[in-house]
Amino acid sequence: MDKFQEATTENETLDPPDWTDMGVLSHRILDDAISYLKDVRDRPVWREMPAEVRSFFSAPLPRSPAPLADVYDDVARNVMPYPMGNIHPRFWSWYMGSSNFTGALGDFLAAIQGSNLGGGNHAAGLMDSQVVNWCKEMVGFPAAASGTLVSGGSMANIIGLTVARNVKAGVDVRERGVGAIPKPLRYYASDQVHSCHRKAMEVLGLGNRALRRIPTDAGLRIDIAALKRAIAEDREAGFKPACVIGTAGTVNTGAVDDLQALATVAAEQDLWFHVDGCIGALIAIAPENRSLVAGIEQGDSIALDPHKWLHAPFEAGCALVRDASAHRNTFAVTPEYLESTPRGLASGEWLHDYGLQTSRGFRALKIWMALKEHGLEKFGRLIDQNIAQARYLTRLIEAERALELMAPTTINIVSFRHRLGDASEEHLKTFNTEIMLRLQEEGIAVLSDTTVGGQHCLRVAIANHRTRRDDLDLLVSEMLRLGREIEAPSMPG
Amino acid sequence: MDKFQEATTENETLDPPDWTDMGVLSHRILDDAISYLKDVRDRPVWREMPAEVRSFFSAPLPRSPAPLADVYDDVARNVMPYPMGNIHPRFWSWYMGSSNFTGALGDFLAAIQGSNLGGGNHAAGLMDSQVVNWCKEMVGFPAAASGTLVSGGSMANIIGLTVARNVKAGVDVRERGVGAIPKPLRYYASDQVHSCHRKAMEVLGLGNRALRRIPTDAGLRIDIAALKRAIAEDREAGFKPACVIGTAGTVNTGAVDDLQALATVAAEQDLWFHVDGCIGALIAIAPENRSLVAGIEQGDSIALDPHKWLHAPFEAGCALVRDASAHRNTFAVTPEYLESTPRGLASGEWLHDYGLQTSRGFRALKIWMALKEHGLEKFGRLIDQNIAQARYLTRLIEAERALELMAPTTINIVSFRHRLGDASEEHLKTFNTEIMLRLQEEGIAVLSDTTVGGQHCLRVAIANHRTRRDDLDLLVSEMLRLGREIEAPSMPG
Ligand SMILES: Cc1ncc(COP(=O)(O)O)c(C=O)c1O
Ligand SMILES: Cc1ncc(COP(=O)(O)O)c(C=O)c1O
Repeated sequence: MDKFQEATTENETLDPPDWTDMGVLSHRILDDAISYLKDVRDRPVWREMPAEVRSFFSAPLPRSPAPLADVYDDVARNVMPYPMGNIHPRFWSWYMGSSNFTGALGDFLAAIQGSNLGGGNHAAGLMDSQVVNWCKEMVGFPAAASGTLVSGGSMANIIGLTVARNVKAGVDVRERGVGAIPKPLRYYASDQVHSCHRKAMEVLGLGNRALRRIPTDAGLRIDIAALKRAIAEDREAGFKPACVIGTAGTVNTGAVDDLQALATVAAEQDLWFHVDGCIGALIAIAPENRSLVAGIEQGDSIALDPHKWLHAPFEAGCALVRDASAHRNTFAVTPEYLESTPRGLASGEWLHDYGLQTSRGFRALKIWMALKEHGLEKFGRLIDQNIAQARYLTRLIEAERALELMAPTTINIVSFRHRLGDASEEHLKTFNTEIMLRLQEEGIAVLSDTTVGGQHCLRVAIANHRTRRDDLDLLVSEMLRLGREIEAPSMPG
Repeated sequence: MDKFQEATTENETLDPPDWTDMGVLSHRILDDAISYLKDVRDRPVWREMPAEVRSFFSAPLPRSPAPLADVYDDVARNVMPYPMGNIHPRFWSWYMGSSNFTGALGDFLAAIQGSNLGGGNHAAGLMDSQVVNWCKEMVGFPAAASGTLVSGGSMANIIGLTVARNVKAGVDVRERGVGAIPKPLRYYASDQVHSCHRKAMEVLGLGNRALRRIPTDAGLRIDIAALKRAIAEDREAGFKPACVIGTAGTVNTGAVDDLQALATVAAEQDLWFHVDGCIGALIAIAPENRSLVAGIEQGDSIALDPHKWLHAPFEAGCALVRDASAHRNTFAVTPEYLESTPRGLASGEWLHDYGLQTSRGFRALKIWMALKEHGLEKFGRLIDQNIAQARYLTRLIEAERALELMAPTTINIVSFRHRLGDASEEHLKTFNTEIMLRLQEEGIAVLSDTTVGGQHCLRVAIANHRTRRDDLDLLVSEMLRLGREIEAPSMPG
């Protein structure tokens, strides 16, 4: 074969020259990771990066190699000490889970095994389908439904809303596009709907305007009568009411729309019923609270989010669609004959036929391992625990004159603020923002803020398996301390 | 606080009761993972799962807990031995990278650190932006361009095509939808374009029909004259030519469109120029071959795929957009004032404003660690190495009477088949498919098949840092052996 030799460097690889050295280093990394989680409670939940850490991340593309031990030291010094903080017991900001060690092992093993979940006949593919089946079981969906694991709740919602569009279009919208739809489609959701639905409407070419925001009642749940009026109006005006989105747990206050009523409206009005259950769908597995999401099993499609209340490390969302063929008909581009290959790697299912990705990672493993280890019942109890903690915090707030509840607590989200005499709304906002920022900067707790009924408030969202009640006691006492400290300078001596 | 106690089980967590036990088990898992990669060459590249393994994956949702050691044993027994095979040196099917150990450590650490890359002021966010900057450097994009790490090439293409739609629509398409676009948009790509673009057109509401497939020349590159004719025809017919997609490395044969000519056409015709560089964009870093993708830096948007030729474990794609504000204006829903929060966690950039996800995983870390460890130059050499290997295989095929090259080899993809006297096309297909399946079933090599110019052929795509030339020698000799074995029964005694 000499005549074929070329002057290139042959047989370079990314594998280490010496696996023994790699072993020594990676065992050290593993020990550090364990200490990191073991001691998480003793570290500040968040801290500002010093200037030299910030500037570390402006280094240009590295051209030459460096020992992996040095690379890891950089990560240990500059990355690990400055996380978002959601793994910490007192992180209650925005909405996300707090990851878990078994899940991290799952992500590691998935990367080692390396399979592409676009499809094919291999073990990872079967586990992917199994986890989707488990998700159906969790929310009471029929076994014949279909589903797919995706990058998160936003994509899971896009999947559901796309199937709705294609089913309701009345034309071959895949081929001809939205411009060919005879009557413009209308979607409905409450005014508390998550912003990812706006993005979905935009990307789908339906336009943000096609998503009507329906007013909410005092509990911030969609007003069913107003919804019906909007549908009637739209029909009158020549639109085609196509889809209603029910939210099981709004991001603002955790309100749960009346899913049974929505299912009824959808059935009467011939609408697709999509449930955004990113926050609340999994309450269906929580023994004390599952009645809160009754009716979810009647959805035509459901978005749920294992990287929230199952604490899967990012990323893991799941879309479920009752009508499996409607789901496949929306996304499949694989010619049917490919699927009937009787043997070999290509004889498995084409999992990419259920969503927008072609290559897909092995997200299922981290979910699978944690579910097997802890069992579903424990995940259900942890959800109940977070809801009980939110109620506990609510009672602490109600018992404390200096604090004010700003919205009803339905599930695990508490909206409240620190009072300040008869200060203006603007002043209250500045004051509460300052409390929030100092809680962060002192590393005590991370909350976020939002607006409810036009009023600024602080927001605690407890989707955290490490939170304990004494963390909430601490939050309240620290807020009161900070309130005093911030107020003090402006108070007469 | 007694009055607030409730009868729930309090203080359950997903953390292990004993971190020491967890340490022992996870060190064992790590050792197994190292052996798994160290010995990958000695295992079959793929093997069929026995029935008991298949049925293992039909178990219902586990309700009760199990020791993690047992859970891991299940994974070690049922998952690890039956991978897709892309980590193996003789996997050359479809198109994907082969992962790497450092990347697996990166995914592990990302899950331990847990940050949500939706945005915020934390180290992972800065590293995410840094890796995007590095991707710009790799393809010669200006520093002022923007970009985002996404789930893969399909999503990266969707990002580019969405920005193109919104920029060229001539109306506020985010608000009003595709139905409000005065002249229907037309996109152009060669007839070799990847199927994810069809999906993109469909989800965007433009419709598959709006993507015109332009014929290709003998090298399977887009025919520039035919493209110009199509654009003129469409303008005549009242369409608005909006976007041309150039493919830098087609999935079928690795053909690279003439990117410079496309950039010129796009400029003359006022089209958005999107480059699907999922396969070939990174040839820009390969010293011996970079001229093949000259012109890529002129794209308005580029999709590239670190989980292909950078061998990042799934998932990691990247979309780059020259006009950063066009990019942000397509996806941002975060009110501007949120971004100017001067302090705290919310003072970082909202990375979710550049794509469809809200929560985002820390994909950057695995890419960053491997780039720092090996340096860009080595990744460039590895790309050159794979291209040289494809040329080597091409020469082996040309030198072997029983084999027939079916398309020109431009980069790392070789299309060929085993001859069979004057057998019909149908017979040739059956014969070559059988060779392909036996190569898989005997664990020797995984190739795939495709159709080029209407003829069935086998396809070797070498995006693999473990492949050596002797693997290709083995492929040829095993194909000849299998050819003889399969032919034999039908030959006169
Ligand atoms: C109600 C709701 N829907 C959808 C999403 C989006 O989920 P993800 O961040 O996983 O994309 C969220 C995120 O918090 C949410 O709260
Ligand atoms: C040319 C091309 N574009 C896009 C894609 C899709 O990339 P991904 O599988 O990362 O979604 C592929 C996948 O092989 C491809 O070859």
